[in-house]
Amino acid sequence: MPDKMKAIVKTKRAPGAEMTLVDIPKVKSNEVLVKVKATSIGGTDVHIYEWNEWAQGRIKTPQILGHELAGEVVEVGSQVKSIKVGDYISAETHIPCERCFQCKTGLMHICSNMQILGVDRDGCFATHVAIPEIVVWKNDPGIPPEFASVQEPLGNATYAVLVEDVAGKTIAIIGDGPTGLFATGVARVSGATTIFMIGRHDFRMNIAKKMGADILLNDKKDDVVGFIMDATNGGGVDVVLDMAGTQQAIDKGFRILRRGGRFTAFGIPSEPLKVDLADGVIFKGATIYGITGREMFSTWFKVANFLKSKRLDISPVITHKLPLDEFEKGFSLMMTRPKVSGKVVFFP
Amino acid sequence: MPDKMKAIVKTKRAPGAEMTLVDIPKVKSNEVLVKVKATSIGGTDVHIYEWNEWAQGRIKTPQILGHELAGEVVEVGSQVKSIKVGDYISAETHIPCERCFQCKTGLMHICSNMQILGVDRDGCFATHVAIPEIVVWKNDPGIPPEFASVQEPLGNATYAVLVEDVAGKTIAIIGDGPTGLFATGVARVSGATTIFMIGRHDFRMNIAKKMGADILLNDKKDDVVGFIMDATNGGGVDVVLDMAGTQQAIDKGFRILRRGGRFTAFGIPSEPLKVDLADGVIFKGATIYGITGREMFSTWFKVANFLKSKRLDISPVITHKLPLDEFEKGFSLMMTRPKVSGKVVFFP
Amino acid sequence: MPDKMKAIVKTKRAPGAEMTLVDIPKVKSNEVLVKVKATSIGGTDVHIYEWNEWAQGRIKTPQILGHELAGEVVEVGSQVKSIKVGDYISAETHIPCERCFQCKTGLMHICSNMQILGVDRDGCFATHVAIPEIVVWKNDPGIPPEFASVQEPLGNATYAVLVEDVAGKTIAIIGDGPTGLFATGVARVSGATTIFMIGRHDFRMNIAKKMGADILLNDKKDDVVGFIMDATNGGGVDVVLDMAGTQQAIDKGFRILRRGGRFTAFGIPSEPLKVDLADGVIFKGATIYGITGREMFSTWFKVANFLKSKRLDISPVITHKLPLDEFEKGFSLMMTRPKVSGKVVFFP
Amino acid sequence: MPDKMKAIVKTKRAPGAEMTLVDIPKVKSNEVLVKVKATSIGGTDVHIYEWNEWAQGRIKTPQILGHELAGEVVEVGSQVKSIKVGDYISAETHIPCERCFQCKTGLMHICSNMQILGVDRDGCFATHVAIPEIVVWKNDPGIPPEFASVQEPLGNATYAVLVEDVAGKTIAIIGDGPTGLFATGVARVSGATTIFMIGRHDFRMNIAKKMGADILLNDKKDDVVGFIMDATNGGGVDVVLDMAGTQQAIDKGFRILRRGGRFTAFGIPSEPLKVDLADGVIFKGATIYGITGREMFSTWFKVANFLKSKRLDISPVITHKLPLDEFEKGFSLMMTRPKVSGKVVFFP
Repeated sequence: MPDKMKAIVKTKRAPGAEMTLVDIPKVKSNEVLVKVKATSIGGTDVHIYEWNEWAQGRIKTPQILGHELAGEVVEVGSQVKSIKVGDYISAETHIPCERCFQCKTGLMHICSNMQILGVDRDGCFATHVAIPEIVVWKNDPGIPPEFASVQEPLGNATYAVLVEDVAGKTIAIIGDGPTGLFATGVARVSGATTIFMIGRHDFRMNIAKKMGADILLNDKKDDVVGFIMDATNGGGVDVVLDMAGTQQAIDKGFRILRRGGRFTAFGIPSEPLKVDLADGVIFKGATIYGITGREMFSTWFKVANFLKSKRLDISPVITHKLPLDEFEKGFSLMMTRPKVSGKVVFFP
Repeated sequence: MPDKMKAIVKTKRAPGAEMTLVDIPKVKSNEVLVKVKATSIGGTDVHIYEWNEWAQGRIKTPQILGHELAGEVVEVGSQVKSIKVGDYISAETHIPCERCFQCKTGLMHICSNMQILGVDRDGCFATHVAIPEIVVWKNDPGIPPEFASVQEPLGNATYAVLVEDVAGKTIAIIGDGPTGLFATGVARVSGATTIFMIGRHDFRMNIAKKMGADILLNDKKDDVVGFIMDATNGGGVDVVLDMAGTQQAIDKGFRILRRGGRFTAFGIPSEPLKVDLADGVIFKGATIYGITGREMFSTWFKVANFLKSKRLDISPVITHKLPLDEFEKGFSLMMTRPKVSGKVVFFP
Repeated sequence: MPDKMKAIVKTKRAPGAEMTLVDIPKVKSNEVLVKVKATSIGGTDVHIYEWNEWAQGRIKTPQILGHELAGEVVEVGSQVKSIKVGDYISAETHIPCERCFQCKTGLMHICSNMQILGVDRDGCFATHVAIPEIVVWKNDPGIPPEFASVQEPLGNATYAVLVEDVAGKTIAIIGDGPTGLFATGVARVSGATTIFMIGRHDFRMNIAKKMGADILLNDKKDDVVGFIMDATNGGGVDVVLDMAGTQQAIDKGFRILRRGGRFTAFGIPSEPLKVDLADGVIFKGATIYGITGREMFSTWFKVANFLKSKRLDISPVITHKLPLDEFEKGFSLMMTRPKVSGKVVFFP
Repeated sequence: MPDKMKAIVKTKRAPGAEMTLVDIPKVKSNEVLVKVKATSIGGTDVHIYEWNEWAQGRIKTPQILGHELAGEVVEVGSQVKSIKVGDYISAETHIPCERCFQCKTGLMHICSNMQILGVDRDGCFATHVAIPEIVVWKNDPGIPPEFASVQEPLGNATYAVLVEDVAGKTIAIIGDGPTGLFATGVARVSGATTIFMIGRHDFRMNIAKKMGADILLNDKKDDVVGFIMDATNGGGVDVVLDMAGTQQAIDKGFRILRRGGRFTAFGIPSEPLKVDLADGVIFKGATIYGITGREMFSTWFKVANFLKSKRLDISPVITHKLPLDEFEKGFSLMMTRPKVSGKVVFFP
């Protein structure tokens, strides 16, 4: 094995990143080394690339980007028991401490001392990456690498949709980003009987249609609240997923939610938002779930089952496959051109 | 309106029934009179027709049979508020007392003083039937009468499947009767990713296939337990539905259930059965739900959504449509020829 | 029986109310007439008495105030089945339509067409009141009228605390109003192992202590967030109940909630509030329940069991018992003197 | 540190055990060595001591008995991170594989490859014992060793009682063994408002009374079913805990359970039992939870909170404290004299 590898590295505390040669990571006793077959751009990667306020406060340079991947294990640490060389794997990106209250009570995905792949340790936009055994996920060999790589955001969507049952229910999904598109597919395959997609970009709305949305509403042009209230005989929808995190999304979301309905808050607002707790939450007897990450690993099992069984076809969401060398094109697609992209996957 | 109507009546305390002319029911202040458009044979009707031990202890003659229906309201009682003449309706068959603990805590379907349509009061195998307002269900006009009529057993299946989420999970359904076939469809549309149907009749197994079963196992010929344990890597399935109620079903069901899995007990055993509580339930940390009827009316809303949205196509299960005059043929199909029938619907 | 009765009536669209002689209500076929034995002041009564913005928009004069009561049935309507003359009763104040989606799915307490006693129809600050059968609750004869009367707000507290289990958990209750004090007692008797009460008035904090609070924190003087985070080793509490509905309460409440914790929103804000959805809800994986009213009637059964068994002693909260003639003193105590009052009960 | 220690060892494949000198265990890299301060006799120890059929099939000799303990860590393995020398600890006895589906989905306590302390590896009836880090539980220093030692069975009781909320509910506990007695205390402190204890031994029933049982029923002398049905107005109790595992317990348990009630199956039957699934489970719409072990570690946190807060006083259950040398007396008390013993704790 060579000593060096190509990687996409944030080298300067400024927007952008560069492809550079770095040392192939050495695995610790509890880690495995993975040869990356496919790795996809997630929202966090974009934040780091753009170098937004959150990234400036959190990221230390140099930092290899990337956290969504599929690959093959090429080396295992001395204490690793459940994984062996040759395994075809992906990885949960929330690396838990295994000791806090959350880790001890089945809530590892919200560990109090969480380390995130590609944020707090080097990521997978590279030919190789070291991954702690505890977050390694063995893939079914029948799942292609570009699908296996996006299981992390697909897991977000799955957890966001399925935190409570949707079968036989109506649902509104606000936000046409990749996770919203995945959520549309998950809701469809899980039995939601009317799916309203509220988005802004025709290109992505068209993908939502392919993923199973019944009704597409343009957040900027359509009377979203009026339409949905009419369509539900004035009652509102059973379930609202906010995948946008904006003031508008929150305002509309709580207005279209029926009494006794469920609201999933997934999109991260950049600042505190106004919430009409009286009419939107309390008098409605609403339940709100804050959702981050994926249940470890209940959600992964569901995602794997969806993919393995081919019940869920996520190919419409994956719009671009690029060699890792073209990472700048990939980021450009994700950042500035939601009109022409869904999910971008690199092949190192 | 005429005074008399044709009805299928159990007139003697013996097997069979006869078509006879009886008075059209007079509605009480809280009832509606329904002109029956479609009415289907349920398991209870068969028990009464066959005159089994349960029926002999419960039924008083004369008794008009039938409890599954779709029809049009032709008269409403003086206190009826939510239903009007001309409404296209079906009916929940569990008529609650509205006063007991269960009725007061959202569990009307297991009311302590329940009266059952076609068992404790005259049923709907007739041109007309009187129904208390509280159990009347308004149908979407787009749902054809033969589908609207079978919502009652479809509701059984829906409640049995969806008492907990099945999305992204594996499920085994034991019993290829109509409710098992409906359950197959509900599980499929609600995201179960592998559906094992364990039955006995090729004709019905073929329907199960159309309803979405992935793997058909013949209870008499196949090594059901061995096959499923292999197919699940020795772990067992996430969910078992027993729609058969036999000793065999219980034995196999608890063996194929994974640790921490969910077991739905729906099929009614004719006597107490042996249950391996130690290895099948306790050491497995299993959860068992006894399911009867349908949640009033959460389940009905789900069923209506499945049908209205056309997510769920139940036409494969409805194998025979007959005029009510041919009730003897209908019962014969249900009783003695599971090899050639699914669900039988009469049109009075 | 006389024709006229004394009642506390909002006669003018202005603050205050007056005691006047009005007709004793005539019961409709589905109602019962109750001779009031005890009736207590609730928050809504205060809003109407004070004539705040909400009251001005909602209340039509003349309006008899009052919705919390215990009394004896002296007459029953012709359709009433479950209640008879002589029954000792209280009443749920949310009068459901029995026809909407919520009423049909076990959520009557958030009925889409709800009518509220003492708000949308005449209330119980009078010697007699008419109550629809569906909301009548039969009391155990061993429960004294002043306890039976406050079951409505005690039910609020019970539902707010017990929407999820608290046994073996830590809880913070923000707001020392009567419902917060009741909630303290419910949390204590239901197994919460550390109860933080965050309030503002020494008199009421002292009651909270008697009701079982372990630690009293003064919202204005103490470093509430710092103290609780220290006391929980930096993790925060398992459960937060906001019974105050202020911006401060929301801010602090989400900061002291542990990752994966449960937040009950009960206090009604007078306007939309800022919520830190990112750090307070989403990254925490928090669950928020909007709570209004009481589950009909699951909560009532729990409340009755608490009182009948004497597990819960609510006497510390009931600080004043007055003849109804002294209603002005009662309102004055509730409005302007939280420093000297808990719950005020009138005896007509 | 000496090389040898005293231990209670099953040396022969026959009833009994003997105190003998054995090597102090050497800790592996992921284990800690514990100096035992207190260790209590559990049901499994009795089975092994008695050498019943189960023990003969499972136990390999020589085997050090014992699995309930409190002690001090005197040595830690090289990979141990969360525990240090001097920590005051107890231990979960279900040692999970950390790799199976259950371990990966928050169900470690029903791991598919579980190893049990004192059964599959040497136990703690000794001065020292080696414990894997993953099952070590740090105790609050204020909890005395005899209480800390019995947290394992107290955890059984806590999980069995609290798998669903009991606050404001009625409960029947069948079986007056130590876990039934603990369950009585947990139910009481968690808000159960009527607690029926169904047992056989006056001595233990008297302890149940002290733990909070409201009504004591002698399984052999009293008309248990008749009494409870009368006391619940014919409705039955909300919750039944079977801590006995006998045919009688199952028969009575399902008869006294109300429609829609919850049944916890905890007592291990020695063979498959007859269950009246039709009337006891299905028509009742009952939910049955098979419970084994304790949730890892949600239950432990609850238990620790109960003890630390002193909400729950378990001292009545601990009837005997003996030096480990008197192990034969201890076993004799547990096996043959339920009339005079609750829980027996040894001090090595």
